[in-house]
Order: sequence, then structure tokens, then C-alpha cells
Amino acid sequence: MTITAPDRPRTAETGPRITATGEGLRRALDGPFHTLKQRWRHEVSADDFVRDPTLGVEEAREWALDKLVALAARGFAIAGFPEAQGGRGSTAESVAHFEMLAMGDLSLTIKSGVQHGLWGGAIVNLGTSWHHETFLPGTITGELTGCFAMTELGHGSDVQSLETTITWLPETCEFEVNSPTPTAAKAYIGNAAAHGKWAAVFGQLLVDGVNQGVHVAVVRIRTDDLGPVPGVVIGDQGHKGGLLGVDNGTLFFDHVRVPRTHLLDRFGGVNTEGVYTSAIESKNARFFTMLGTLVRGRICVGGGAASATRKALSIATRYSLKRTQFRLPGLGAEIPLLDYQAQQRKLLPNIAKAYAYGFAMNELALQLQRVTDAAGADPKAGRELETRAAGMKAMLTRWANDTIQVAREACGGAGYLTENGLTLLRQDADVFATFEGENTVLMQLVAKALLLDYQRTWGDLDLRGTAQATARMLGETFLERTTARSVIDRILTTANRRPEAQQLTSRAWHIQLFEDRERHTVEGLAKRMRAAGKVPAEEAFAATNACQQHMLAAARAHTDRVVLEAFIAGIDATGDPYIASILSKVCDLYALATIEENRGWFMEHERFDGSRSKAITEAVDALCLELRPKALELVEGLGVEESWLNAAILRG
Amino acid sequence: MTITAPDRPRTAETGPRITATGEGLRRALDGPFHTLKQRWRHEVSADDFVRDPTLGVEEAREWALDKLVALAARGFAIAGFPEAQGGRGSTAESVAHFEMLAMGDLSLTIKSGVQHGLWGGAIVNLGTSWHHETFLPGTITGELTGCFAMTELGHGSDVQSLETTITWLPETCEFEVNSPTPTAAKAYIGNAAAHGKWAAVFGQLLVDGVNQGVHVAVVRIRTDDLGPVPGVVIGDQGHKGGLLGVDNGTLFFDHVRVPRTHLLDRFGGVNTEGVYTSAIESKNARFFTMLGTLVRGRICVGGGAASATRKALSIATRYSLKRTQFRLPGLGAEIPLLDYQAQQRKLLPNIAKAYAYGFAMNELALQLQRVTDAAGADPKAGRELETRAAGMKAMLTRWANDTIQVAREACGGAGYLTENGLTLLRQDADVFATFEGENTVLMQLVAKALLLDYQRTWGDLDLRGTAQATARMLGETFLERTTARSVIDRILTTANRRPEAQQLTSRAWHIQLFEDRERHTVEGLAKRMRAAGKVPAEEAFAATNACQQHMLAAARAHTDRVVLEAFIAGIDATGDPYIASILSKVCDLYALATIEENRGWFMEHERFDGSRSKAITEAVDALCLELRPKALELVEGLGVEESWLNAAILRG
Repeated sequence: MTITAPDRPRTAETGPRITATGEGLRRALDGPFHTLKQRWRHEVSADDFVRDPTLGVEEAREWALDKLVALAARGFAIAGFPEAQGGRGSTAESVAHFEMLAMGDLSLTIKSGVQHGLWGGAIVNLGTSWHHETFLPGTITGELTGCFAMTELGHGSDVQSLETTITWLPETCEFEVNSPTPTAAKAYIGNAAAHGKWAAVFGQLLVDGVNQGVHVAVVRIRTDDLGPVPGVVIGDQGHKGGLLGVDNGTLFFDHVRVPRTHLLDRFGGVNTEGVYTSAIESKNARFFTMLGTLVRGRICVGGGAASATRKALSIATRYSLKRTQFRLPGLGAEIPLLDYQAQQRKLLPNIAKAYAYGFAMNELALQLQRVTDAAGADPKAGRELETRAAGMKAMLTRWANDTIQVAREACGGAGYLTENGLTLLRQDADVFATFEGENTVLMQLVAKALLLDYQRTWGDLDLRGTAQATARMLGETFLERTTARSVIDRILTTANRRPEAQQLTSRAWHIQLFEDRERHTVEGLAKRMRAAGKVPAEEAFAATNACQQHMLAAARAHTDRVVLEAFIAGIDATGDPYIASILSKVCDLYALATIEENRGWFMEHERFDGSRSKAITEAVDALCLELRPKALELVEGLGVEESWLNAAILRG
Repeated sequence: MTITAPDRPRTAETGPRITATGEGLRRALDGPFHTLKQRWRHEVSADDFVRDPTLGVEEAREWALDKLVALAARGFAIAGFPEAQGGRGSTAESVAHFEMLAMGDLSLTIKSGVQHGLWGGAIVNLGTSWHHETFLPGTITGELTGCFAMTELGHGSDVQSLETTITWLPETCEFEVNSPTPTAAKAYIGNAAAHGKWAAVFGQLLVDGVNQGVHVAVVRIRTDDLGPVPGVVIGDQGHKGGLLGVDNGTLFFDHVRVPRTHLLDRFGGVNTEGVYTSAIESKNARFFTMLGTLVRGRICVGGGAASATRKALSIATRYSLKRTQFRLPGLGAEIPLLDYQAQQRKLLPNIAKAYAYGFAMNELALQLQRVTDAAGADPKAGRELETRAAGMKAMLTRWANDTIQVAREACGGAGYLTENGLTLLRQDADVFATFEGENTVLMQLVAKALLLDYQRTWGDLDLRGTAQATARMLGETFLERTTARSVIDRILTTANRRPEAQQLTSRAWHIQLFEDRERHTVEGLAKRMRAAGKVPAEEAFAATNACQQHMLAAARAHTDRVVLEAFIAGIDATGDPYIASILSKVCDLYALATIEENRGWFMEHERFDGSRSKAITEAVDALCLELRPKALELVEGLGVEESWLNAAILRG
């Protein structure tokens, strides 16, 4: 159970900044994005992207725009744009850039996310070549600043109910963008309060009195010298709980006219004859196709939250290695905080989760690239990606909020001083839980997708009785395997032939528990939802509403399983056996800590008994103790440069 | 299972601001402090104590001092001072004032806590009549501003290891206060950075070369016009994660001399002959006696955190009743957020906890009063109070941090806007988890006290076997009953004669589960600690360190039980049967939600099986649904005036 290989000497490549083991872990966790991420570490300094946390709202906003322009000029964070316009045409790389940016500052990250990711992404994904040629070059440099104006005061999660209208005016061949009520005002819009010159405005497209559903029009909201544009009323939402560098505001449109070409018409638009045309007949399908192309934002948010958490864990762990309190009985030396079991318990399982989520993010970025490359040719893969993105976003941002707080408390009073960086991370990451999809709503989307897969597999069969007998088949069809499929199958096959299959650190046992929890939770949900579907209409809401907590549980179980598989695949792809052996221990900790968190469920469903449950808790304690001597290397492996941490407690 | 009594009409007393049920709940929850708390509601407006959340550091600091002075002049928040100096001599009332202050603003609360509670409390509790007469009148008005200079950079939790020295100089009959090393600097000291003129400085008292342990000297740190004093180096710790209105700073003493009279010498000092004298012989006992008199600060912090949480729950619940999203299938009306099961689950169990903790705080305040009145005559009651205070502080501040965040997320993007008040609460309450005793350290203190009680009862008996057989006796001795003893006994006695004792809403069953969890956890811990006590010295740290998580679990189990008993006593003391019937439902929800959170433990220890565990979850869901129509009344009952909420989303 102990890691015996000695730590290796530093190499010329790593230099004095990082241990060889830390470097190896970093390479493994970066995976396919190692070269890109190393470029950030070698070329980007704290001055380039770490914010002074005491800046006020105005200063922070100017700082964020300045840094965004400067980094874009150096080719950072613009990989997602088409090569024709100066990008690299790689959505996967754009996610990796976002993750690195988030190791510096989240305001700058979200400012770039708004400008390059959301506004730029709307042009790229919903527009056609004229839009690309017209808007993208300036968007990339940051000269042509834009907003992503989807959310309204009245409707955030329920995008299909937006009130804004985009009405075709046949007499002038224009569209009129209008906010018909006060609650139709666009709200929480980044780049709106100070810097935005343009906005991609989501609204109901009305052509000849027919509502064609939500579409997007590009609308000028400020002049080049940031002066007012008639008909657009802009509000400043001012001070927020964090992200002070992002200028969120409201936009209200009073019958504003734009040319016909300003509708982003890749999936539907009005032709020169004034007739609405779309390749997608169903209004509903069109809506979800359009929204589906915007999935990258959701993926990035999860990754950014995870980067901020890695930073927080790096600060707290390094401090816990350095800070002592109370003395050893008799011996007299003061004890480093990380020697205490309670401190280990706060940090090490979260470091393990950081690795797990990191490998899962890499996989998700590659999956995004495949779906983007397929350009709609594989709708099933597109749906899977959306489900994965929703689950990962909700899971990672929840973990980020909780874990940054744990890290801040683990540093005691020092953690509360702004100069130590943790409270800024906490405040900035907070909103990640509710923007780009509110987490509770997202997890319900995941559950609905799982039910849909379930229904496709099982149709209207009576589920009672058949479920157990066909569990194996179910596992192969409904539990959509991640890319780790072959390695998982190998582990399971090998384990079945070995006596220690029930050992707590048996990876096969972890896999089986994770899969079983997902399968059983989704099956149970399917039964309940099926029953809820049969009640009279007036009771329908109450019946499905009563399943909400069950839906959230199913979504969590699914996402946990996906993450475990990604971790396993990540270890499998690690060439260095010593690094792989450390990662395997970290994966044990991830798996067992997750099982421990859900031990109530496992015992309720008699997957294991009380004595095994207690043994799992002991195993988590033991793994924390075992990994504690590698704590520095493990946080080095999380990939945040020490010079970016910006914590006074780590200096001197 | 339904609440059938109709809501009662508004009365002249309640006016239009609040429902009669809300008023009744408020009266019940205020308990013995109703008159005092109503005085705040009737006489204190938002202008008096609700902060503009966008104030910067300097403005917020000035605002806090101004408001503190103005409220003190009106007799608020100074009840804890002796009547001779213009207070009311009531420590219980001082806690209640602190709780009300925290419904306005936490910076102001902590500013008052530093000035009146900590600095003033040190003078009151550690000083003698000369100190009272000299320092208290100005302390009460806020003219004589003071610091509580205990924590050092090097030592926070480990107060006995403080490095600051207070050395007796026989030749001049003075003390010399000195910071011998950089880590001896006092840190995180409120009132130090800007406003403090005096400081109560904790340090090792050295008399004729003998260390008499930690004592406190009153030291001038600024002149009346806030100019410098030679030998005192003051640092400003500047911007923090919250509490911007509190001027935390560092104090470094370079051989500063103070007269003999400036040692707070109630428990030990140097007489005019230059000889150290103390009524308490043991240095250790003296230290803990001195610290024990400062327990009020810890009690107040828990109560203040709970008040902030009540405010957050009030905002989020009122918003959830007003805000709609998505439509009823078929019917078309948009659904209020609070109709969703997931939203109910976020808010209602936390509202139930707010009631539970509120009743427990009332009891704790009265217990504090009794111990204060006994003036050391009942050391056992003093120790119990310290244990209770530590457990409650850690429990309530943890809950506050988690729950304010839940409330902020329950409001979606709106929750993140500063104008809606939630992020300020979150940022300000954050530090409550680590100041006035770091929570993890406090919970270990609780566990140690429980073990000590256990040892007193059982001595060195072999615990194996005897534990089960003597469980009943144990219940009566080691499980120290709260004031609810008689009502609890009545419930248990009655329940044993009734068949439905196993029903999920049987209060007797709740009590038994809570007690059983505490007893078993402490017993198990005692066994492990006993074994750990027998290992060789060099393994002693590792052996006891391995019990840390178990210690935290025991402390939580104990505190949960104490809180449940207080809730039961609070209902018993409620004269209005309709209000009592609502509170009884709320108590069901508190008890079952707490059992649900700990269902892993209960199943591990075979206290109930999986099917019962699932039934508990269903019962929590059902109670949320049942209490949802009373949500407004329930948050009204939490006692935060609507005009104090200061949330833009609730206006208009």
C-alpha cells in the first residue's frame, strides 16, 4: 500500500521550480494539451493575468479589457476561431486556453469568455461566412466588443419563453428588435455595462405573423467611441458578489431596426424574397440545434471553475505544509497543519477530485472537438455531449464553490485576508453555479436525457422484473461507455478471475459500484416517471415534481461514473509507470471518497453493509495519510505555476 | 399530517407588516427575549444599521464606528456592562442584542463585538473595580476605543504558546510589554488598523524570572487624536473577504511600559510589594479560568451567524414565492420557484434548522447568565457552558456559511447582484467559521470535554460489554440533560406506552436516535482514545491523530442532540396551541432532515435499515410540501423585519 519509488532528481527541463514528480504529474494531467498549457506556464507571467484583488469595479473592468486585448495579440485564448480569421479552428484548444486563463483571474477569464467565447461563438456557430468575415477579425483583437444577450429579467433558465421580439418588416427588408415589457430586458449581460459595441440578441422571430421561435440578431448598442445608440437603453448592474472585472448590465430595445443580413441565419433566416427558410422543419428541433452549438460555453465554465479550485488547493496545501500549530506531546516540535488528520481530510480527497475532474475535462474537450468536426452529422454524439457538458458543469462548479471555501477555512484567519487570494477565488467562482445554466436545472436536463436513452432502449416494456434479469445487457446499451471502454472492460474481465476482486482498492469493484448506482437510480427514476405520466393532467405537475430530488440523484450518479472512467483512461494513457502508480493511489482516493459520500445510498440498497462502510471510511483515512508525503508533488501536478498563486502567506 | 387551523386575521398590534401567524412564531422563537427584540423592530430602522454594500474599506470603517456610537447612545447593544457603568448587567441580553445587530449588518456587529464585547468584556471579566471605573464609561459610548489583542501571527488556536511577554520591572514598578519575534505580532485584531486607542494585550507574565502564564495588560496604542504612541508598531491588514467595516490590523510592541495597575488582575497580578499573587494556584487552571470568562464572544458569534442566515433565508424564500419560471404543462401559468421540490429542499429544512438553532441560542444565553451570576461558584456549569458554546459556535457558523450560499444560489443570477444583499451576507459571515475559535479546533474541544465527562463517570473500567448493559444509566449520567429534561422524560415515558412509537414523526423516536448516536459515538471514541493512550510515546501523536475525524463526529452528534432538546423545550414553552402545532411540524422536519443527513451512520450501526432510511427521505419531502403554504409565515417568524432585508429583488 506504500509508494516506494524514490523521488527523482530535478531535470534541466523542470528547472528549480518544480519537482520531477510534480512535472510528471502535470504532464499526465495536461494530457493532449500539455504543449499548449506549458506555453502558458513559460510565457505568461502573473503580471499578464493575475489581478490585484483590491481593485474597485471601474479599475477591474478596465484591467480585464486591457489584459484580454494584450493576451489576444499574443495569440492566447483565441484558438477557437476559424483559421481564416486568425484562429486555429480548434474548439478543444479553446477550452484548454480557458482553463489556463482561469488559473490567473476569473474576471479576465469570463471577460474573454463573453467576448471570444459567447459573442464570438454566436457569430461562428450561428452565423454564416458574411458574419464571420464582417465581425470576427475585430472580435478576436477585442476591438469589436460584443455581448451575448440571451437571458432576460423575466426568463433565465426558460429560454424558449423569452419575450424579446425580432420582427421582419417586409416594407424595408429589416428586422425590428423590441423589448415589449420591462421583464423582457436582457439582464446579467457581460460587456453590456461598459465596453460592448454590439450584441447578439436572442428573441422570438416573427415573420408574417408567424413565430419561428428563438433566433439571434446582431444589434449595434454603442458607437465606436462608446456613445449611445438611439433606441437602446443600457443599465449597469454594478457591484456583484465577485467578478468585478466583468461589466454586467441590462439591455432594453425600443423598436431598434437592423438590416436583413444581421440575423445570424445558419439554421434559419429570411431570404431576399422576404420568406423564412430553414433546413430544420420543427421549431423545437431548430431551437435545440441552435442552443446545442453553444455548448462550449458550458464546458468552459466547468473547466474554469476547476482551475480556480486547483489554485485554491495549491495555496491551502502549500500553506498547510509550512504552517505549524500546537506541539507534539513530549517532543516539543510544532506540528505542520497537514500532519493533522482533519486537515488531510479537508484537502487530499479534494486534490484527488481535482485530478479526476481534470482528466474528465480533457476528455470532454476532445468530445467537443469531435462533435464540432462532425458539423451536425452525428446528432446522437451531439446530444451525448450536451448531457455530459451539463452534468460536468453542474458537478464541477458545485465542487469548486465548496472546495475553495474549504481551502480558505483550512488557512484559518489568513485565508480571509484578501492578500492571500482565496476569498477572491471564492467570490469570483460563486456565480459559476448559476450562470451558463443554473445547476439544478442542468442536472434535471441530464436526468431527462438519461431517461430518454433508457426509453429508447426499453420502449414501453413493463420494467418490473425485466430489469434485474437484463442488467448485463442494460449495462452495455444504456450505460453509454466513455472512451475508456476498452480499458474498463479489460479491468472488469481481469478482476473476475482474481480473488481480491472485493478488496477496497480493486478498481473493478469501484467501477461496478459506480455503474450500479447509476443504473439503479435511473431505473428507479424511470419507473416513477412512468407512473407519474399516467396520472390525470391536473396532477401531472405534482407527480413529476415529486421526482425532482430523484432526478438530481440520477444525474449525479451518472456524472460520477463518467468521471471515474475518464480518470481510469487517463492513468492508462500515462506512459511513466511511477507517475501512473501515484495516480492510481489518487484514483483510489477519488473512488473511495465518492463511495463514502454516497454510502447512505449503497447501504439503503444493500450494496454493502455497515461494516464494509466503516472499512471504506478507514481506507479513505489511510489513503490520506499515505499520500500526505506527496502533497507538494500532487499540487504541483495540478499545474498552477507557483508564481501565479499570488498569496502573501506563501512568500518569504 | 396537515395543518388545518385557518390563518388568523391581522391584529392591531401586528399591523399590516406581518401575518398573525408570523407574529406568533416570532414571539415563540424570541422566547424570553421577545420584548427586547421587539424594541429593535419598532425602534431601529434600516438607516440605523443596514450598510450600503458597495462601500469601500475606508467608508465602511467610518460607517461602522458612527453607527456603533449612535446605537450605543440610544442604549442598544450595551446591556452586558455593569449597571454601575450604565449597562444592565445582563450577559444574556447582550447576546440577544448581538443577534439583533446581526440582522442589520455583520461589520457593525463585529465592530460592536470588538469594542463592547471583547475589549469591554476583557475589562469587565478580567479587570477589577479600578479598571471598570477607569475604562468602561468611555468604552460604552465608543469614545474609548479598544482592541482585544490575543491572536498572534504565529499562534492563533494555540493561545498558551503566545510569544508576547509582559515582564514585571521591580525597579520602576511597571510592566514591559514586548513582542520578541516577528511572529509574536498580534494579528487580525479588530479596531487596530484605524480606530483603537487602547488594547488588552495577552502575553506571558514574567515576574522575577518565573512565567506565570498568559495574562492581560491594558496598553495605550494611539493618542486621543489617533496619533502614534512610541514603541507600538501598527499594521493595517486592509482588504478582506468581507467585514470591510472592521479595521483589522497587526500590533507589534517594542518594549512598551505600562503602570502596575494596567494588568487586568482579577485572577492574578503583582501587588504593591512586587509579588505575584493569585487565588488560583495552578497556572493551567488560571489560564482556563481566564479564558472561560470570555466565552460570551463565542456564543455571540454563533448567534450572529444564525441571524445573518435567517436574513438570507428570508430573502430567498420571499423571492421564491414571487419569482416564477417555466409553465405548468397544459395549463400555462408560470410556476413559483418555491413550488419546485428542489427549491423546497434547499430552503425549508434550513428554515427548520433556523428555528432549532434559535431555540438553542436562547437556552445558551440563559445558561451564560446563570454561569455569570454564579461568579465561579459552579465550575461544572462553567465547563458545560464552554463545551456547549464551542459546539454551538462551530455548528451554527458552518451552517451559516453553507446556507447563505444555498440562499444566494436559490435566487439564481439575481442572488449574485450586490443590490440583493446575499453576497454581502455570505462574505461577511465567512470568517465566522475561523475566528473566535477555529471550528475544527472547537469541535475537538467539545469531544475532549465529552470524553472527560465519560471518564469521570466510568473511570478506568473496561468498557467492553458493560456499555450495552448500562446504556440506560449512562443515558442519565453522561448525557447531561439540557433544561428540557422534564419534557423529554415525559415524551419518552408517554411514547413507551403508545403503539406508534416507531412512527417517523414520533418525537420519542427522534430523541432516542439523537441520543443513541451521541452515546455510541462517544463510547467508541473513548475506547479508541483509551487504546491510543497505551502506545509508546513516539507513536502517541499518530494514534490520537487517527481519531480526529471520530472526535468531530462525536462533537456533532452531541451538539445535534442538545439542539433537538432545546427545540422541544421551546415548543413546550409556547402557550399558543396553533403556533405550537406549526412548530411541532417544523421540529419534525428538523429532526428528520438531521437524521437523513446522518443516515449513513445509522445504517452502519444498524439503527435502522435501508427501507426505513428511504422512508425518512420521503417523509422529509412530504414535510417540505406540507410546510410550503406556510413559508411566508415561517420566515416572518424568523424575526427579521422586512424593511431590514435591503434586497432590490423584493421591492416593487
